[in-house]
Amino acid sequence: MVRVVLGVSYNGQAYQGWQSQLSGLTVQDKLEKALGKFTAQRVSTLCAGRTDAGVHALMQVVHFDSDRERDTHAWVRGTNANLPRDIAVQWAVLTSKDFHCRASATSRRYAYVLLESPVRPSVDAGRVGWSFRPLDLSAMRQAAGILLGEHDFTSFRASACQALSPVKNMLAIDIHQRGAYWRIEFEANAFLHHMIRNIMGCLVQIGQGKRPPEWMAEVLAARDRDAAAPTFSPDGLYFLGPRYDPQWGMPERTPAYDGLP
Amino acid sequence: MVRVVLGVSYNGQAYQGWQSQLSGLTVQDKLEKALGKFTAQRVSTLCAGRTDAGVHALMQVVHFDSDRERDTHAWVRGTNANLPRDIAVQWAVLTSKDFHCRASATSRRYAYVLLESPVRPSVDAGRVGWSFRPLDLSAMRQAAGILLGEHDFTSFRASACQALSPVKNMLAIDIHQRGAYWRIEFEANAFLHHMIRNIMGCLVQIGQGKRPPEWMAEVLAARDRDAAAPTFSPDGLYFLGPRYDPQWGMPERTPAYDGLP
Repeated sequence: MVRVVLGVSYNGQAYQGWQSQLSGLTVQDKLEKALGKFTAQRVSTLCAGRTDAGVHALMQVVHFDSDRERDTHAWVRGTNANLPRDIAVQWAVLTSKDFHCRASATSRRYAYVLLESPVRPSVDAGRVGWSFRPLDLSAMRQAAGILLGEHDFTSFRASACQALSPVKNMLAIDIHQRGAYWRIEFEANAFLHHMIRNIMGCLVQIGQGKRPPEWMAEVLAARDRDAAAPTFSPDGLYFLGPRYDPQWGMPERTPAYDGLP
Repeated sequence: MVRVVLGVSYNGQAYQGWQSQLSGLTVQDKLEKALGKFTAQRVSTLCAGRTDAGVHALMQVVHFDSDRERDTHAWVRGTNANLPRDIAVQWAVLTSKDFHCRASATSRRYAYVLLESPVRPSVDAGRVGWSFRPLDLSAMRQAAGILLGEHDFTSFRASACQALSPVKNMLAIDIHQRGAYWRIEFEANAFLHHMIRNIMGCLVQIGQGKRPPEWMAEVLAARDRDAAAPTFSPDGLYFLGPRYDPQWGMPERTPAYDGLP
C-alpha cells in the first residue's frame, strides 16, 4: 500500500461544496468517482480543508491509500481523464502513512477576490465578490492588522462549525488592489467554518466607510457571532492550499496559482 | 427619439454567441428581452462586433432608438435588473442618429488569454485557451510582427465569413506573459470571421516550436484557409471593445477591463 497525495484545483460554482453528499454533486464525489474508474476500486479521500458550496480551490490537497502501482504522471493523467472540465489534478506525490493531508498541515492559505464596481460582476460572475462602493485600502489594512496573532475568533464562526477550539493563529492578511480588483490573502494555522467570509463582511463594511477600522477590535472582543457583519458571498473565495514541513516534499503551489486578478 | 448606446460585458460560456437565434439562447436575445421588459416595448439592437459561441466581451457596444425618456443611470440599472448574472450593462450614452455602433468604429480590440500548463484549465475552464507545451515569447512576437499592417487575411478567414473584403489593417498585436498566463491583444480596423482564433492556432504552433516564425509569412501569402492551423478554442477570446472618434464621447473601457490575468 502506498499513500497517494494529490493537488486538486476546481471551480466551485457547479458544486455543493467539497464534502460528499447523497446527491453526488460535490467535488469529493466527482473526484472519488474518477479515482474509482481509474483504479477500478472504491477510493475514499481525505482533504486538507473542506470548502463550502461555490468556493473554489487552486490547491486542495487530498490523500488516500492504494495498492495500485502507478507512477505520479499516471495518477495525474488517469484521474483527469475521468474528471469534469472544472476539476483537475495538478500533481501527485507518493508517500508513507506518516503523512496526513490535514494533520500534517502547519497552515492554510485562502484568497478572496473582490470586484469594486458600480455594476455587478458579469464576465466574472460566480468567481469574484462585489463591492459597489469604493473601498479604502488603509482602513482595511488597519482593520486586518487587528486580527493578526492568536485570538478567540468566535465572532466569525458559523453555528455549524465543528472545530474543537475557536482559538486560531492568524499569521498574515495581505491586501492588494489592481485596477477594479482587490485581492485579500489570509494565512492561519487553521480556519473556523465561514471565518473568512465573516471577516470579509466586516472588512468590506470598514472599507466602504460604514464602520471605523477600530470596529474590528470590538467585533473580535465580543466573541459573539451577532456582533459581526453578515456572511459575505462565497463567489470570490479561493483555497490556495495548505503548507507542510519541507521534509514531506509537497509542491508549494500549482501552475494556475497566478490566475487570480 | 433618442439613440441609446450601451456598453455590455458578458461571459459567453452559457450562450450560442451574440447573434439572435430562434433558440433564444444568445446574448442579443437576453439583452433585447431585458430591454423589452424595462421599456415595455420591442427593442432591436445592433452591435459593434458579433461574437461566436463561447466568446466573452468586456465591452460589446450596442445601439437602438427609443422614445422612452430615461437618464443614463436608469438605462443601466433598469436593464441590469432584467439580465442574467453573466451579462451586465456597464454604461449608457444618449446620442444622435449620426452615431452608429458599427459604422462609426475606427478599430476593434480583442484579447486572447492562454494558460500554459501541463494540466488543462479547471478553475478557469471556459475562460482561457490552453497550451500544454511551453511557449517561446520571442518566436511568437516575431511571427505576430509579420501580420502588422494591411494584408489580405484570406488564410485566416472562416468559409462562412460575410465581410465584403478580406483586406484588413492589423494595427497592433501585443504579447505578454504573467506566470502561467499569456495575454495576446489584437487591434485592427476590422476582423474577419474566426480571424483571431485562426491566427491563434498558428501562433501557438510557432510558440510551441512546431513551426518557425517565418511560417506565418507563408500562411499569410498563401491566401488559402488550408494553409493555416486549425481554428483555436473560443474559450480564451474576449472582445475588449471598439474605438470611436473622441467627438462621440463614448467610454474607452469598462471597470472590469483589468480582470484578465
